[in-house]
Amino acid sequence: MEIVLLCVGKTDRTFWADATEEYAKRLKHYTKFSIHYLSDVKAHKKTAPTEIKNEEAKNILQKIKTGDVVYLLDEKGKSFTSITFSKKIEQHMVSGTHRIVFIIGGAYGFSDSLYQQFPLQICLSQMTFSHQMVRLFFCEQLYRAFTIINNHPYHNN
Amino acid sequence: MEIVLLCVGKTDRTFWADATEEYAKRLKHYTKFSIHYLSDVKAHKKTAPTEIKNEEAKNILQKIKTGDVVYLLDEKGKSFTSITFSKKIEQHMVSGTHRIVFIIGGAYGFSDSLYQQFPLQICLSQMTFSHQMVRLFFCEQLYRAFTIINNHPYHNN
Repeated sequence: MEIVLLCVGKTDRTFWADATEEYAKRLKHYTKFSIHYLSDVKAHKKTAPTEIKNEEAKNILQKIKTGDVVYLLDEKGKSFTSITFSKKIEQHMVSGTHRIVFIIGGAYGFSDSLYQQFPLQICLSQMTFSHQMVRLFFCEQLYRAFTIINNHPYHNN
Repeated sequence: MEIVLLCVGKTDRTFWADATEEYAKRLKHYTKFSIHYLSDVKAHKKTAPTEIKNEEAKNILQKIKTGDVVYLLDEKGKSFTSITFSKKIEQHMVSGTHRIVFIIGGAYGFSDSLYQQFPLQICLSQMTFSHQMVRLFFCEQLYRAFTIINNHPYHNN
């Protein structure tokens, strides 16, 4: 099974990139995993958030293939524990899902059209975190899920 | 108002320390803030988690002063949004709280006695994250709370 993390905007701080990359590397022991960064949409100070989100949606849709299972990471999504999240991933593996794409949106979230098109939405925390931090959290959580699935001792709760 | 983050165990990876330190530094613009790390309890492979938690509890209690408002960071705690968390902090400022101590426990969580003694418990996420990551999340979230209280533009959701 292939898993892709699609992120709007680059990671520009070294320690975020390092930490995220560390989990991405570890994940590759378990599954085909990659992170794709979409360039920020060019916007002026006065560009409306809706316009930015619509442009971002176009870029996102170009990366989605037919048959992909798509999850939006969003504060309004469903909360999982690490265990239930790992079970979700395992279900996809068992049921023969070819590719899962998790998407972390830009500063303003997702366009309405994306919310409608992709009803599977996951909430990592009710709190708002920086987008760089969400990427890191997610990679750690996905890595944790695979250690749980494979009975490896990383997750001791 | 003084805020202390009390953590069981050292932060040994450079990027975690760097990132956590960055938020700690930013927080000092808003409030008296410090992070205290308690040394890990010496334990053998066979030491029971309960025993470790009881030893950690002793070390934690030595750092608590009379009059402190204490919050345990715990998965079983109450969830807040960034906004409701900032309101909670603001309430403490307004009501003249002298010192708040937030505590992040060790790998096994807190002893039963600590749960009983400190009923205020906050959950950052239903997911389990590494303890180093929880420290970083918390500092970012506390920083975010102060930017919300002070109407600074960091939090744009």
